[in-house]
Amino acid sequence: MRLYNTVELRGYTAITDTVHLSEREAERHSEHNYSKLRVRERYSSQMDRSMACSPPLSRVVVSGGTHGNELAGVCLVKEWLRGDSAPCLERSSFTAQPLLANPRATEQGVQNTTLAPPSPSDPYELVRARELDSLLGPKGSDEAVDFICDLHNTTANMGASLILYSLSDYFCLHMLHHLQTHMQLAPVYCVVFEEPPSAAYSLDTIGKRGLALEVGPLPHGLVRADVLSQMSEGVKLILDFIDLFNRGTLFPPCQVEVYRKLEGLDFPRELQSGELNGTVHPERQDRDFRVLNPGDPLFLRFDGETVRFKGERPVYPFFINEAAYYEKKLALWTAERVSVSVPALRVRGGLGGAGGGD
Amino acid sequence: MRLYNTVELRGYTAITDTVHLSEREAERHSEHNYSKLRVRERYSSQMDRSMACSPPLSRVVVSGGTHGNELAGVCLVKEWLRGDSAPCLERSSFTAQPLLANPRATEQGVQNTTLAPPSPSDPYELVRARELDSLLGPKGSDEAVDFICDLHNTTANMGASLILYSLSDYFCLHMLHHLQTHMQLAPVYCVVFEEPPSAAYSLDTIGKRGLALEVGPLPHGLVRADVLSQMSEGVKLILDFIDLFNRGTLFPPCQVEVYRKLEGLDFPRELQSGELNGTVHPERQDRDFRVLNPGDPLFLRFDGETVRFKGERPVYPFFINEAAYYEKKLALWTAERVSVSVPALRVRGGLGGAGGGD
Repeated sequence: MRLYNTVELRGYTAITDTVHLSEREAERHSEHNYSKLRVRERYSSQMDRSMACSPPLSRVVVSGGTHGNELAGVCLVKEWLRGDSAPCLERSSFTAQPLLANPRATEQGVQNTTLAPPSPSDPYELVRARELDSLLGPKGSDEAVDFICDLHNTTANMGASLILYSLSDYFCLHMLHHLQTHMQLAPVYCVVFEEPPSAAYSLDTIGKRGLALEVGPLPHGLVRADVLSQMSEGVKLILDFIDLFNRGTLFPPCQVEVYRKLEGLDFPRELQSGELNGTVHPERQDRDFRVLNPGDPLFLRFDGETVRFKGERPVYPFFINEAAYYEKKLALWTAERVSVSVPALRVRGGLGGAGGGD
Repeated sequence: MRLYNTVELRGYTAITDTVHLSEREAERHSEHNYSKLRVRERYSSQMDRSMACSPPLSRVVVSGGTHGNELAGVCLVKEWLRGDSAPCLERSSFTAQPLLANPRATEQGVQNTTLAPPSPSDPYELVRARELDSLLGPKGSDEAVDFICDLHNTTANMGASLILYSLSDYFCLHMLHHLQTHMQLAPVYCVVFEEPPSAAYSLDTIGKRGLALEVGPLPHGLVRADVLSQMSEGVKLILDFIDLFNRGTLFPPCQVEVYRKLEGLDFPRELQSGELNGTVHPERQDRDFRVLNPGDPLFLRFDGETVRFKGERPVYPFFINEAAYYEKKLALWTAERVSVSVPALRVRGGLGGAGGGD
């Protein structure tokens, strides 16, 4: 019942779990994870009658600089903190608060300060994580902020990707649909790492709801105007969606495609030293979210040999060649593409006097 | 007479300084640096009769990892050091030696180890620089190796760019011509930072001759197969050229275009804090070596305002949005484009029994 618990924790009432899969995907899915299919079977017949309802969101945070060298988020948040573009964060039903998540890593321009030799007496990220939990949470409590959008950049060609932790996060799946319908500057994808919020360590899980917005490709340590514009547009649409929701808009049922994480694959490496001896194949580089079939070129060894994908079924890779994952021994994640039927969504209660859309 | 001294130090005899400029470029040039034009006038009449001669090159080094997060050079050198692709470095007249220039920065995956708090008792880069000078030099001495090709990557869209320190480095300008004629995988450019080798601090100036090969765009901290192939091809052609030279090939006079560094321009910044408040304009991003006219969009401030180029004449920017230059307060370098007439080149003496091309 993990899925149901997850949903409850994210503030929903009266929801049904309505993951709908195509025949073929259900087949693949069942090979992979039959226990979740049993959950699906139990609830799927109720889909069209269901409605997801949840309270309005007034305390909304947009954070950047969790990783100090992902500069588009850093620059946007610093600009907002200077107050120059504060109107970007204002909506009729709320005003979002900007937050620089990891000021020390941002100042040093590194992913985490632990790249520098950490002092045992000063594990900065741990101290800062506790500060943030106190400021935005405590996680899992009634005092936690309503929504956190944590801004990230990736060197992978992932466009604007929302990172979620549950296939039943209907609020964020409607938000995804809103972005996919309105975003002009980049393609919009959604990646689901199925973990209960209690097990997820990312900043955005401190809030009652939240997501990470990954925009790329962007090299670490620099900011490109095009990626900055994509991220600005993504934030604008996220805040617009929350405002529409708060003001009573009925979001009808919709169908969205998401990419559910399967497993990570490492680069080719030397057996003894563990050093890289190859990288992503040129036919796979920059092709995040494009199908990878068994036998397709996956890596190119430095000696010129092509390494082919040995999986038994088609998958959809993402985070292909993300610089921060080299040290984690990760060349890419594979995913399965899942079509999710999302029930209608409407605010429960509402913010007094904020007006209502439909 | 700096130019003449420079040339002598690089091992030439019987050369003439034959920088030829178009009318218009001479005009711009004279606005900028009239002393060099006087040098030009003194020698230009001798151009077509001149021949650059210098001894053959037997001790050739190809180094990577001077900056530990520029991974294409690091991966190539490590591959060579493992011996897997050693034939890439073998030619009939010499075998090039691979060298990992900054093993500690490479291991940490950082530009320089000074990104980590340096210990006053252990300024690693300084110690390593002395080691390299002892290994490859001493700089300026007869014992120095004959040629160093130092491999770098840049986040700027600079294709394969040779970095030289003198407009009179005819050996390297012929090498440039060879690369521009034969390179298939990337456009080839040449940037000249006019400095005497004694004042230049780069690794490649330890040898009797040398250059840096910059290949980009490549984000820091990752390796792309396409950039790796471009760098491999660049190294292959550089070694081919040295081998042709050693074997007695006569390289006829040629005309090459190079980009002579003028000045660095910083990003827009907040007056008080010095923080970035803009980045490279989308119409300028990735357009290295394309003309920038007075009034052209140069930066885009985060508040949406375009900052235009205020120069008085057209320039050619390069190293546009290089991540490593943020901390140096440098958004790009400007250059003037100069056409250089290069006299014929032939080896003086030769490597006994190596055979000769023409």
